[in-house]
Amino acid sequence: MPLSPEQQAEIDAQRSAPSQTLRATAPGMEKHLYTAHPVLDHGFVRVIDYMGDDAAICQAARVSYGKGTKSVSNDEGLIRYLMRHWHSTPFEMCEIKLHVKLPVFVARQWIRHRTANVNEYSARYSILDREFYIPAPDALAAQSEVNNQGRGKALEGDEAQRVLKYLTEDAMRCYDHYEEMISDVGQQGLARELARMNLPANIYTQWYWKVDLHNLLHFLRLRADAHAQYEIRVYAEEICKLVADWVPFAYRAFEDYRMGGATLSATALDCIRRMVKGEKVTQETSGMSKGEWREFEGLFA
Amino acid sequence: MPLSPEQQAEIDAQRSAPSQTLRATAPGMEKHLYTAHPVLDHGFVRVIDYMGDDAAICQAARVSYGKGTKSVSNDEGLIRYLMRHWHSTPFEMCEIKLHVKLPVFVARQWIRHRTANVNEYSARYSILDREFYIPAPDALAAQSEVNNQGRGKALEGDEAQRVLKYLTEDAMRCYDHYEEMISDVGQQGLARELARMNLPANIYTQWYWKVDLHNLLHFLRLRADAHAQYEIRVYAEEICKLVADWVPFAYRAFEDYRMGGATLSATALDCIRRMVKGEKVTQETSGMSKGEWREFEGLFA
Amino acid sequence: MPLSPEQQAEIDAQRSAPSQTLRATAPGMEKHLYTAHPVLDHGFVRVIDYMGDDAAICQAARVSYGKGTKSVSNDEGLIRYLMRHWHSTPFEMCEIKLHVKLPVFVARQWIRHRTANVNEYSARYSILDREFYIPAPDALAAQSEVNNQGRGKALEGDEAQRVLKYLTEDAMRCYDHYEEMISDVGQQGLARELARMNLPANIYTQWYWKVDLHNLLHFLRLRADAHAQYEIRVYAEEICKLVADWVPFAYRAFEDYRMGGATLSATALDCIRRMVKGEKVTQETSGMSKGEWREFEGLFA
Amino acid sequence: MPLSPEQQAEIDAQRSAPSQTLRATAPGMEKHLYTAHPVLDHGFVRVIDYMGDDAAICQAARVSYGKGTKSVSNDEGLIRYLMRHWHSTPFEMCEIKLHVKLPVFVARQWIRHRTANVNEYSARYSILDREFYIPAPDALAAQSEVNNQGRGKALEGDEAQRVLKYLTEDAMRCYDHYEEMISDVGQQGLARELARMNLPANIYTQWYWKVDLHNLLHFLRLRADAHAQYEIRVYAEEICKLVADWVPFAYRAFEDYRMGGATLSATALDCIRRMVKGEKVTQETSGMSKGEWREFEGLFA
Repeated sequence: MPLSPEQQAEIDAQRSAPSQTLRATAPGMEKHLYTAHPVLDHGFVRVIDYMGDDAAICQAARVSYGKGTKSVSNDEGLIRYLMRHWHSTPFEMCEIKLHVKLPVFVARQWIRHRTANVNEYSARYSILDREFYIPAPDALAAQSEVNNQGRGKALEGDEAQRVLKYLTEDAMRCYDHYEEMISDVGQQGLARELARMNLPANIYTQWYWKVDLHNLLHFLRLRADAHAQYEIRVYAEEICKLVADWVPFAYRAFEDYRMGGATLSATALDCIRRMVKGEKVTQETSGMSKGEWREFEGLFA
Repeated sequence: MPLSPEQQAEIDAQRSAPSQTLRATAPGMEKHLYTAHPVLDHGFVRVIDYMGDDAAICQAARVSYGKGTKSVSNDEGLIRYLMRHWHSTPFEMCEIKLHVKLPVFVARQWIRHRTANVNEYSARYSILDREFYIPAPDALAAQSEVNNQGRGKALEGDEAQRVLKYLTEDAMRCYDHYEEMISDVGQQGLARELARMNLPANIYTQWYWKVDLHNLLHFLRLRADAHAQYEIRVYAEEICKLVADWVPFAYRAFEDYRMGGATLSATALDCIRRMVKGEKVTQETSGMSKGEWREFEGLFA
Repeated sequence: MPLSPEQQAEIDAQRSAPSQTLRATAPGMEKHLYTAHPVLDHGFVRVIDYMGDDAAICQAARVSYGKGTKSVSNDEGLIRYLMRHWHSTPFEMCEIKLHVKLPVFVARQWIRHRTANVNEYSARYSILDREFYIPAPDALAAQSEVNNQGRGKALEGDEAQRVLKYLTEDAMRCYDHYEEMISDVGQQGLARELARMNLPANIYTQWYWKVDLHNLLHFLRLRADAHAQYEIRVYAEEICKLVADWVPFAYRAFEDYRMGGATLSATALDCIRRMVKGEKVTQETSGMSKGEWREFEGLFA
Repeated sequence: MPLSPEQQAEIDAQRSAPSQTLRATAPGMEKHLYTAHPVLDHGFVRVIDYMGDDAAICQAARVSYGKGTKSVSNDEGLIRYLMRHWHSTPFEMCEIKLHVKLPVFVARQWIRHRTANVNEYSARYSILDREFYIPAPDALAAQSEVNNQGRGKALEGDEAQRVLKYLTEDAMRCYDHYEEMISDVGQQGLARELARMNLPANIYTQWYWKVDLHNLLHFLRLRADAHAQYEIRVYAEEICKLVADWVPFAYRAFEDYRMGGATLSATALDCIRRMVKGEKVTQETSGMSKGEWREFEGLFA
């Protein structure tokens, strides 16, 4: 249960007081506002604010391309055209602000996306809560044998039990000592900015994260991908659902051109030309390395 | 008159159809939405959208600093504290989207501020209108004799007449030829992407410009400054009025700490210490160069 | 002739005084340093400085991926892997600084790439030279009849003569008046920051432009593309040659995966699968719009 | 001892093989290249590459301001002028690439500076070493009683012993379990991307960090400041020494205008004017809050 009764009360209050505005509103997004969508065991994603909608993307494109956009008469067609030709600036005209609660090791991956605004809870100023990510049994996976950065099947039996025991006990013991070290009862009390160093990377933190739609889609392409680490992918997938309700035309174009699409090299395009003509192309005759060929085959299997 | 009847009708329509929203709204900003505020002879600034308000700045700060911000209990005090200590991220949580019509030579200065999103009218796709900035008599200034980048008194008499004649006639002639070159009546017609090169830098362009509050305030500090070129300063001043109505606490703090404040060097601080003790400090005894001393004296004249 | 004798003498001096350094050096780039490569009628590109080489890209990747990169043993293979999987950060570890002289309307397109550092010659402080871009006959093209943003065949006969006459005479007249307005002989003299507004967009400016390799390749992908405007494409093509000599492995991977490659949508991938199986796919059965289909066909024609 | 014999041998090899280059070289920086400067108990900073020097800053400024910079004839004077007037772009023309080894909780603060390029060691791909930051006795400080984000005196006696014991034992136990969980001897072995979550924030990581001089100075102003957390400040101070040897003019200007300077509000400037005239100003008559006044007094104590 990620939210305290106080937080839930605050959300209920925010959701009960609509205002009038002259700005563009996205009805699909209004219904998500403030609501915490649970992710992992203690995390969540909730939308705090947004700017723009599908029409705002088109409006910006029409300022740029003026009469040149008249030929694409409907909004969805224009958005597909913009996505297909990598026109990024109209998508930058939409913005979203999220409140996210997430484990520190996920936050460390996430923050690598630099073109965003962040306000993170500071463990220098404040005390972190006793909340740690402990994987569910099916997420407790073995190292992949073929992929240095991936995972394989779920751990089984004793090994799974032992890992869960370590993760849980180490987290609890580290947190106990954290609390004890910062206590000022009968002692000076260690500075919070130092005590936090004893906390493992599965502790939860939270932040406000604000990003434009273009950069958000780039983030989602990488992090909602099947090769992303499961623990960040579930956040990305939750955000995908929000975006689908916010800017449905842009999201559908994103699914077609980015998530479901692929970038092929000149060499790969040439192989396709040969294959379409009926030639049987193999790795040896493809001009690709084994790794490239495996990925190429994966697309057309 | 910067707006066509069609544009005015569009604005009237946008202003007449409020929606309900659960987002934070800034009443002071709602009254400006879509309205074109005239700048220079054909330019304007109008707010298309905004995200956040003074409370959103505080909300973000309180996520970061958690219980640490409790000691500053009221919102204006907290905002002043954040501004004084250069905490930029809470101000980044507000965003504004403007539609601006401006001369090309102003646009060239403006775009140097890179941390913003821009969709500009494209003269590659579309035909520019016959609208040029011609300075009003009091803005038709001579080169400053002391400042390489500044201007002095207004030109007078024949010289002023001659300059106005050149600016006006050259603009009209260049535009006549632009139109003639792109015409496809009885000829092939030059490509628009080439014909535009004949247009002088006082022609008007327009763009959507979206920026967060932190970067906007940085822009305003530099461009609403007395040393900024008049033609960009009038835009900055118009935007200042909008910001003052949007986030009044942040704007007041900005006026006190940035616009009206000054950054002093270690050397200058030392001079002040001596002056406060009653010492008479001169340029020779200050440790400053002549240029620095002149600026220092200007602050305390 | 883009360089004055003084500039050529300065370049000769810079090229005659090598220093010793412990930094990574790229022999292919050293031979280009400072040399002005002519572009258009008065423009040029010259390399002022660079940081890193192919080995620096691999070194950075190996810091990130540690033992995980051991499996890709050779540098070129690793660079191809990084490019194929959109790993951008290792390419950001190389940096280049160029001195570019270019027409203002080209500069306006170029500056839209925001992730770069720029110092442009200031017409507020200084006086621009009388140098304008006048297209060569084969670059004096008509508006495309099918593409709003493109150009068609070269203009012919009288029309070409007339256009050249307009471009040349308007540039000269505007510059004459610019000079006359800023003159302080027998008059006050208009401020330079105002006088510059009378200059058409084919006047030359110059800047220092510093960018990392990842962002440079993104720029080159868009601007060396066949759809880019000719006047910026020739700059991009000149830079491509420099990059090929600087980081040959990275450049070859870029040519294969970016310049010669293509991004295909989920719909397009599905069509390919059907075509490889021998199905005859048409626009009607493809699920693509006419525009998309035309581009898809272009790839496999 | 932060470096393994292999690393030291690599550094020795890199330092023994100078090349010839036509690029600008900074002799003061060449002597630092590759050398690991120790920071904290296991960390270091070392320069991998750099671009530009003091002369490059001036060269870029002179491109921008052309003849306008002639009035400031010497390089140091020009650099001071640029720093004083917040001209950031010439400083962006220098770039530095560092290899840094640092505790994760320091890395988390550091990465908040977004305008930089980073390649971090990936604990998803590779196995982290058993190296943890354990504060030296004088850095083992109590929470400040007056400052939510600061620290007070060093812990004493039993409390200090207890804290050191917790930090050391928890780190060792968590690392033991990390090793045991990823082991594939007699078990499947947990995925590295999961096992890393058991490691506390004082474990060391490392990265390549590349940044331009303008953004580096901004980082140093905040992180070499007396209010910065000690554990990041020692890195900033080490980098300050490198910068002082690299671009001595720029560094001296930075010390005078930024590190030793102060930004005063309009209200504060007014108080100074009154004080210089001999008036006795108190907090009550200053127009400042208590917090502001305390900081103001601190400057002139």
